[in-house]
Amino acid sequence: MKTVNIVEKLSLFSEYWSPKIVGELNGQQVKLAKLKGEFVWHKHDHEDELFFVIKGKLQMFFRDRIEIIGENEFLIVPKGVEHKPVAEEEVQVMLFEPATTLNTGDKRNDLTKEILDKI
Amino acid sequence: MKTVNIVEKLSLFSEYWSPKIVGELNGQQVKLAKLKGEFVWHKHDHEDELFFVIKGKLQMFFRDRIEIIGENEFLIVPKGVEHKPVAEEEVQVMLFEPATTLNTGDKRNDLTKEILDKI
Repeated sequence: MKTVNIVEKLSLFSEYWSPKIVGELNGQQVKLAKLKGEFVWHKHDHEDELFFVIKGKLQMFFRDRIEIIGENEFLIVPKGVEHKPVAEEEVQVMLFEPATTLNTGDKRNDLTKEILDKI
Repeated sequence: MKTVNIVEKLSLFSEYWSPKIVGELNGQQVKLAKLKGEFVWHKHDHEDELFFVIKGKLQMFFRDRIEIIGENEFLIVPKGVEHKPVAEEEVQVMLFEPATTLNTGDKRNDLTKEILDKI
Protein backbone atom coordinates (compact mmCIF):
# COMPACT_ATOMS: atom_id res chain seq x y z
CA MET A 1 0.00 0.00 0.00
CA LYS A 2 2.26 2.69 -1.38
CA THR A 3 1.64 5.93 -3.19
CA VAL A 4 2.42 5.59 -6.90
CA ASN A 5 3.78 8.52 -8.88
CA ILE A 6 2.77 8.03 -12.48
CA VAL A 7 5.30 10.50 -13.92
CA GLU A 8 8.07 8.58 -12.18
CA LYS A 9 6.68 5.25 -13.43
CA LEU A 10 6.42 6.59 -16.97
CA SER A 11 10.13 7.47 -16.85
CA LEU A 12 10.99 3.79 -16.31
CA PHE A 13 10.20 2.60 -19.81
CA SER A 14 10.24 3.88 -23.36
CA GLU A 15 8.75 1.19 -25.60
CA TYR A 16 5.47 1.92 -27.30
CA TRP A 17 2.27 -0.14 -27.14
CA SER A 18 3.52 -2.12 -24.17
CA PRO A 19 1.32 -1.39 -21.13
CA LYS A 20 2.87 -1.75 -17.68
CA ILE A 21 0.84 -2.67 -14.62
CA VAL A 22 1.11 -0.10 -11.84
CA GLY A 23 -1.86 -1.02 -9.69
CA GLU A 24 -4.51 -3.67 -9.06
CA LEU A 25 -7.88 -3.38 -7.38
CA ASN A 26 -11.17 -5.25 -7.46
CA GLY A 27 -10.02 -7.49 -10.30
CA GLN A 28 -9.12 -4.44 -12.35
CA GLN A 29 -5.71 -3.15 -13.29
CA VAL A 30 -4.22 0.30 -13.63
CA LYS A 31 -1.73 0.41 -16.48
CA LEU A 32 0.54 3.00 -18.00
CA ALA A 33 1.48 3.01 -21.64
CA LYS A 34 3.29 5.10 -24.20
CA LEU A 35 1.72 5.16 -27.62
CA LYS A 36 3.08 6.34 -30.94
CA GLY A 37 1.86 5.59 -34.40
CA GLU A 38 -1.10 3.52 -35.41
CA PHE A 39 -2.38 0.50 -33.47
CA VAL A 40 -4.56 -2.28 -34.89
CA TRP A 41 -8.32 -2.37 -35.15
CA HIS A 42 -9.65 -4.60 -32.37
CA LYS A 43 -12.35 -5.01 -29.77
CA HIS A 44 -12.66 -6.53 -26.33
CA ASP A 45 -15.64 -8.86 -26.17
CA HIS A 46 -15.96 -8.77 -22.39
CA GLU A 47 -14.16 -5.71 -21.12
CA ASP A 48 -14.86 -2.00 -21.12
CA GLU A 49 -11.64 -0.04 -21.34
CA LEU A 50 -10.78 3.42 -20.02
CA PHE A 51 -8.10 5.61 -21.64
CA PHE A 52 -6.98 8.59 -19.56
CA VAL A 53 -4.50 10.83 -21.36
CA ILE A 54 -1.63 12.08 -19.22
CA LYS A 55 0.35 13.70 -22.00
CA GLY A 56 -0.28 14.31 -25.68
CA LYS A 57 -3.33 13.83 -27.81
CA LEU A 58 -4.84 10.46 -28.63
CA GLN A 59 -7.07 9.83 -31.61
CA MET A 60 -9.49 6.98 -31.07
CA PHE A 61 -10.82 5.73 -34.36
CA PHE A 62 -14.22 4.06 -34.43
CA ARG A 63 -15.81 2.66 -37.56
CA ASP A 64 -18.02 5.73 -37.93
CA ARG A 65 -16.03 8.56 -36.34
CA ILE A 66 -12.90 9.71 -34.52
CA GLU A 67 -12.81 10.85 -30.90
CA ILE A 68 -9.93 13.08 -29.76
CA ILE A 69 -8.72 12.62 -26.18
CA GLY A 70 -6.45 15.35 -24.82
CA GLU A 71 -4.69 15.83 -21.50
CA ASN A 72 -6.94 15.55 -18.46
CA GLU A 73 -9.51 13.76 -20.57
CA PHE A 74 -10.67 10.18 -20.62
CA LEU A 75 -12.75 7.97 -22.85
CA ILE A 76 -14.42 4.69 -21.98
CA VAL A 77 -14.60 2.27 -24.90
CA PRO A 78 -17.43 -0.18 -24.18
CA LYS A 79 -16.97 -3.91 -24.70
CA GLY A 80 -17.63 -5.12 -28.20
CA VAL A 81 -16.88 -1.80 -29.88
CA GLU A 82 -14.17 -1.87 -32.53
CA HIS A 83 -11.54 0.79 -32.02
CA LYS A 84 -8.07 1.77 -33.19
CA PRO A 85 -5.86 4.12 -31.15
CA VAL A 86 -3.66 6.44 -33.21
CA ALA A 87 -0.99 8.74 -31.79
CA GLU A 88 0.63 11.09 -34.29
CA GLU A 89 3.07 12.20 -31.60
CA GLU A 90 3.91 10.28 -28.44
CA VAL A 91 0.97 9.93 -26.08
CA GLN A 92 1.15 8.82 -22.46
CA VAL A 93 -1.95 7.15 -21.09
CA MET A 94 -3.26 5.55 -17.94
CA LEU A 95 -5.59 2.63 -18.55
CA PHE A 96 -8.22 1.12 -16.26
CA GLU A 97 -9.50 -2.27 -17.30
CA PRO A 98 -10.10 -5.79 -16.03
CA ALA A 99 -7.03 -7.92 -15.37
CA THR A 100 -8.19 -10.21 -18.17
CA THR A 101 -7.87 -7.57 -20.88
CA LEU A 102 -5.49 -8.35 -23.76
CA ASN A 103 -4.05 -5.24 -25.41
CA THR A 104 -4.99 -6.33 -28.92
CA GLY A 105 -8.39 -7.68 -27.85
CA ASP A 106 -9.77 -10.18 -30.35
CA LYS A 107 -6.67 -9.93 -32.56
CA ARG A 108 -3.36 -11.64 -31.97
CA ASN A 109 -0.34 -10.34 -33.77
CA ASP A 110 3.13 -8.89 -33.26
CA LEU A 111 1.71 -6.17 -31.05
CA THR A 112 0.04 -8.62 -28.67
CA LYS A 113 1.49 -8.60 -25.15
CA GLU A 114 0.50 -11.79 -23.39
CA ILE A 115 2.32 -10.96 -20.18
CA LEU A 116 2.67 -7.43 -18.89
CA ASP A 117 5.43 -6.22 -16.60
CA LYS A 118 4.56 -4.77 -13.24
CA ILE A 119 6.65 -1.70 -12.54
CA MET B 1 -19.26 7.13 -25.61
CA LYS B 2 -17.94 10.64 -25.25
CA THR B 3 -14.61 12.06 -24.14
CA VAL B 4 -14.80 13.41 -20.59
CA ASN B 5 -12.72 16.41 -19.56
CA ILE B 6 -12.14 16.15 -15.82
CA VAL B 7 -11.12 19.80 -15.36
CA GLU B 8 -14.39 20.85 -16.96
CA LYS B 9 -16.35 18.40 -14.80
CA LEU B 10 -14.61 19.64 -11.66
CA SER B 11 -15.76 23.17 -12.46
CA LEU B 12 -19.39 22.07 -12.25
CA PHE B 13 -19.53 21.66 -8.48
CA SER B 14 -17.97 23.08 -5.38
CA GLU B 15 -19.23 21.08 -2.39
CA TYR B 16 -16.72 19.02 -0.49
CA TRP B 17 -16.89 15.29 0.27
CA SER B 18 -19.59 14.73 -2.31
CA PRO B 19 -18.26 12.51 -5.11
CA LYS B 20 -19.82 12.84 -8.56
CA ILE B 21 -19.98 9.98 -11.01
CA VAL B 22 -18.31 10.77 -14.33
CA GLY B 23 -17.87 7.31 -15.79
CA GLU B 24 -18.89 3.67 -15.43
CA LEU B 25 -17.18 0.54 -16.66
CA ASN B 26 -17.08 -3.12 -15.70
CA GLY B 27 -19.19 -2.53 -12.59
CA GLN B 28 -16.76 0.13 -11.45
CA GLN B 29 -17.27 3.87 -11.31
CA VAL B 30 -15.02 6.82 -11.97
CA LYS B 31 -15.82 9.66 -9.60
CA LEU B 32 -14.55 13.16 -9.05
CA ALA B 33 -14.52 14.83 -5.65
CA LYS B 34 -13.31 17.95 -3.91
CA LEU B 35 -12.01 17.43 -0.41
CA LYS B 36 -11.24 19.91 2.31
CA GLY B 37 -10.82 19.33 6.00
CA GLU B 38 -10.93 16.06 7.83
CA PHE B 39 -13.12 13.11 6.85
CA VAL B 40 -14.19 10.27 9.16
CA TRP B 41 -12.34 7.08 9.92
CA HIS B 42 -13.94 4.28 7.92
CA LYS B 43 -13.27 1.18 5.90
CA HIS B 44 -14.86 -0.60 2.99
CA ASP B 45 -15.36 -4.27 3.77
CA HIS B 46 -15.64 -5.39 0.17
CA GLU B 47 -14.11 -2.71 -2.03
CA ASP B 48 -10.59 -1.58 -2.80
CA GLU B 49 -10.55 2.14 -3.48
CA LEU B 50 -8.22 4.20 -5.67
CA PHE B 51 -7.47 7.87 -4.98
CA PHE B 52 -5.78 9.74 -7.81
CA VAL B 53 -4.88 13.33 -6.95
CA ILE B 54 -5.56 15.86 -9.70
CA LYS B 55 -4.80 18.97 -7.65
CA GLY B 56 -3.47 19.58 -4.17
CA LYS B 57 -2.05 17.22 -1.59
CA LEU B 58 -4.04 14.55 0.19
CA GLN B 59 -3.04 13.05 3.51
CA MET B 60 -4.33 9.54 3.98
CA PHE B 61 -4.28 8.56 7.62
CA PHE B 62 -3.96 4.90 8.53
CA ARG B 63 -3.95 3.61 12.09
CA ASP B 64 -0.15 3.26 12.01
CA ARG B 65 1.04 5.92 9.57
CA ILE B 66 0.18 8.69 7.12
CA GLU B 67 0.60 8.48 3.38
CA ILE B 68 0.91 11.70 1.36
CA ILE B 69 -0.58 11.69 -2.14
CA GLY B 70 0.41 14.59 -4.40
CA GLU B 71 -0.51 15.54 -7.93
CA ASN B 72 -0.02 12.80 -10.51
CA GLU B 73 0.04 10.25 -7.71
CA PHE B 74 -2.43 7.60 -6.67
CA LEU B 75 -2.94 5.30 -3.72
CA ILE B 76 -5.00 2.14 -3.57
CA VAL B 77 -6.59 1.52 -0.19
CA PRO B 78 -7.34 -2.20 0.07
CA LYS B 79 -10.67 -3.43 1.36
CA GLY B 80 -10.92 -3.74 5.13
CA VAL B 81 -8.23 -1.16 5.86
CA GLU B 82 -9.30 1.73 8.06
CA HIS B 83 -8.43 5.10 6.62
CA LYS B 84 -9.21 8.78 7.03
CA PRO B 85 -8.58 11.29 4.24
CA VAL B 86 -7.45 14.73 5.38
CA ALA B 87 -7.04 17.77 3.12
CA GLU B 88 -5.50 20.82 4.77
CA GLU B 89 -6.17 22.80 1.59
CA GLU B 90 -8.65 21.87 -1.13
CA VAL B 91 -7.77 18.66 -2.93
CA GLN B 92 -9.29 17.46 -6.18
CA VAL B 93 -9.33 13.72 -6.69
CA MET B 94 -10.45 11.13 -9.17
CA LEU B 95 -11.71 7.93 -7.56
CA PHE B 96 -11.97 4.52 -9.09
CA GLU B 97 -14.02 1.99 -7.16
CA PRO B 98 -16.91 -0.48 -7.46
CA ALA B 99 -20.37 0.99 -8.02
CA THR B 100 -21.37 -0.43 -4.62
CA THR B 101 -18.90 1.73 -2.68
CA LEU B 102 -20.39 4.05 -0.05
CA ASN B 103 -18.23 7.12 0.63
CA THR B 104 -18.20 6.62 4.39
CA GLY B 105 -17.79 2.84 4.13
CA ASP B 106 -18.90 1.07 7.29
CA LYS B 107 -19.93 4.35 8.94
CA ARG B 108 -23.15 6.21 8.33
CA ASN B 109 -23.32 9.85 9.37
CA ASP B 110 -23.93 13.36 8.05
CA LEU B 111 -21.18 12.91 5.50
CA THR B 112 -22.74 9.78 4.00
CA LYS B 113 -23.93 10.19 0.42
CA GLU B 114 -26.40 7.44 -0.40
CA ILE B 115 -27.04 8.64 -3.93
CA LEU B 116 -24.39 10.30 -6.06
CA ASP B 117 -25.07 12.69 -8.90
CA LYS B 118 -23.85 11.85 -12.36
CA ILE B 119 -22.38 14.91 -14.03
